[in-house]
Amino acid sequence: MWLGKSAVVGVGLSKFGKREDASLRELAAEAVYESFQDARDIEPGDVEAVIVASSQPERLVVQSHVAPLICEYLGVKPSKGAFRVESACSSGGVALRMADIMIRSGEASKVLVVGVEKMTEAPRSEVMTTLSIVGDKDWESIHGITAPAGFALAAQRHMLEYGTKEEHLGLVAVKNHANAELNPKAMFRRRITLNEYKDSPPIAKPLKLLDCSPICDGASCVILTDAEDARKYNDTPVVVKSITQTTIGNSSTTVDDLTTWKPLVEAASRAYSLAGISPKQVDVAEVHDCFTIAEIIEYEDLGFCGKGYGGRFVEEGQSAIGGEVAVNTSGGLKAKGHPIGATGIAQVVEITLQLRGEAGKRQVSGADIGLTHNLGGFAVNHVVGIYGRMT
Amino acid sequence: MWLGKSAVVGVGLSKFGKREDASLRELAAEAVYESFQDARDIEPGDVEAVIVASSQPERLVVQSHVAPLICEYLGVKPSKGAFRVESACSSGGVALRMADIMIRSGEASKVLVVGVEKMTEAPRSEVMTTLSIVGDKDWESIHGITAPAGFALAAQRHMLEYGTKEEHLGLVAVKNHANAELNPKAMFRRRITLNEYKDSPPIAKPLKLLDCSPICDGASCVILTDAEDARKYNDTPVVVKSITQTTIGNSSTTVDDLTTWKPLVEAASRAYSLAGISPKQVDVAEVHDCFTIAEIIEYEDLGFCGKGYGGRFVEEGQSAIGGEVAVNTSGGLKAKGHPIGATGIAQVVEITLQLRGEAGKRQVSGADIGLTHNLGGFAVNHVVGIYGRMT
Repeated sequence: MWLGKSAVVGVGLSKFGKREDASLRELAAEAVYESFQDARDIEPGDVEAVIVASSQPERLVVQSHVAPLICEYLGVKPSKGAFRVESACSSGGVALRMADIMIRSGEASKVLVVGVEKMTEAPRSEVMTTLSIVGDKDWESIHGITAPAGFALAAQRHMLEYGTKEEHLGLVAVKNHANAELNPKAMFRRRITLNEYKDSPPIAKPLKLLDCSPICDGASCVILTDAEDARKYNDTPVVVKSITQTTIGNSSTTVDDLTTWKPLVEAASRAYSLAGISPKQVDVAEVHDCFTIAEIIEYEDLGFCGKGYGGRFVEEGQSAIGGEVAVNTSGGLKAKGHPIGATGIAQVVEITLQLRGEAGKRQVSGADIGLTHNLGGFAVNHVVGIYGRMT
Repeated sequence: MWLGKSAVVGVGLSKFGKREDASLRELAAEAVYESFQDARDIEPGDVEAVIVASSQPERLVVQSHVAPLICEYLGVKPSKGAFRVESACSSGGVALRMADIMIRSGEASKVLVVGVEKMTEAPRSEVMTTLSIVGDKDWESIHGITAPAGFALAAQRHMLEYGTKEEHLGLVAVKNHANAELNPKAMFRRRITLNEYKDSPPIAKPLKLLDCSPICDGASCVILTDAEDARKYNDTPVVVKSITQTTIGNSSTTVDDLTTWKPLVEAASRAYSLAGISPKQVDVAEVHDCFTIAEIIEYEDLGFCGKGYGGRFVEEGQSAIGGEVAVNTSGGLKAKGHPIGATGIAQVVEITLQLRGEAGKRQVSGADIGLTHNLGGFAVNHVVGIYGRMT
């Protein structure tokens, strides 16, 4: 059993939503400052390396080289460097993974991991172009295989093969909105009903507006240190047990089964094995519900339920707070919001709060083991992380 | 003395230049295929992780998520994931650094590092915007502090403080063009004279056209493996002795001395220390000559000569092939070309050929130790690598 080497000692999250009041760097600072308030006896000047996750600041806010830009705004001069990682919607997960690897290799002992995306400033047409070019522009996106279309194909196939119903998709949205109501940082702090869901406008059959995560501004931050020193900076550090990533390509044709995402199964299997746990031991999980069907498939591919039983799993309340495994207690991408680069790191912020027992009204009682799943592109790129309280 | 853990077992480079015949993924494949021909008994399917360095494909070719895109085109499905790093002009150096760290941490034992940029497809106005937003758009670039202007300030100050002359800048360009003539992959395979240099049009005083590296298409590739296994894949592996990075911010105001780049001095000092060598032991170096003045300052800050003696160093031929340390034998950014994301990795391709004795007409005799220096933004972000033959 591999014991993990790095630990989370500080977390921060900006308010998610349409943030006309804050620029990209200001959003990042909001999350970073909160993380330094959360940790103890650690200052921005102590940070050795900074990894920024951001998907497309060049198009969305017309600014590149954002890692040094954010460092400058924070007054951080990292002697072990700053850089950005891009892995579309899984950028945040990859940034955390690289921070963990830097610490495990001995390269650095204090790494600041910042995720940020400001998506509401650019004109809507520019935002649509930006999102569509995550897919293969020359061979797929240009023909209409954008994200909603791709995930709609997965939903249709899951319905055909396993009898998953529109209501199952709707129940994911209803659950995640209910959780978001309890999260002060969420974009949509309101419950929705199944009827509201059913009446929402169609996007790509069978997906409706309320199946889709929103365009959103936001930032997230995690301070990761060597686990050996973690108690200096926090009374309740959260240990990174494992982070894995698997990639198979970019276009939908590389996904040879629309309803079983093999790279996710592979990444999850390795993450469980490295952490020395089984799926049934996971108490709380933040998974990539960019569209509701994704959460249903992820229940299955993460091993929370059998293949094809994802719809029933949510219907039975097994993924609700108090169920078998509480999924997306933060509200998920659906209702907390999905500022692309911030998402993977925001997932770890939520898991950290849950494992510390600091998640307020959405607290899962006795949460010992948490899992994150962050996805990039059309289910082609998956990052799975497993976290636990330091004992 | 830290002995290094990873080794270069295969290198490849596309032809640099205006490549209307090749798309981004085709350029990448050109470099990658060459690297697999260079290595032995290793196939694309053996690759565990892929790191892609690319600065702004979203603006330059309107395509994001390029790491999985390139994987798909190559037929690689990396079980330990693919992602992109962005660090402006130092993206390639950072990608290599992360690959080395992945190997040292035990995360992967075979990593493909690919750098690519296609800069000549977009309209010129778009390319200019793309380059300018590497700087702080809100506070600097918009006022004209673009890259040529920033490096022109450094040149003016170096001239004032140390008596560096226009001819010294020109001699860097003359040397690098002479080297490029010997490099079949270079963009500009022609010598220039000092008079041609002097007559070239002004860009930002004192910099002229022939002080500047060109807009260019190109790709580069390095296959990095665990050093212990390296001889399986290549008879003459090149060991990564150290790679360091230091970042101080993004805007020119963070550089508190225009003629001594402190983050470079710091990164170099740590790189030498980790590798257990002194600057005088370096036989061959590829340094970031985005503008000629940069190469002169880098001679000094890398310790090849004393502060202020950079101009004299090139004048005396100390940085020519056959001099004290042969600098930019490939032709450098100036004459080989500077496809942004490809540059840092292309530097390691050249150093590898030199250390193996395979650099053809530009071979430095008896080259044992090689150094690379890759810079991002206005001298704010520096990556230094030291390489040696496996003994």
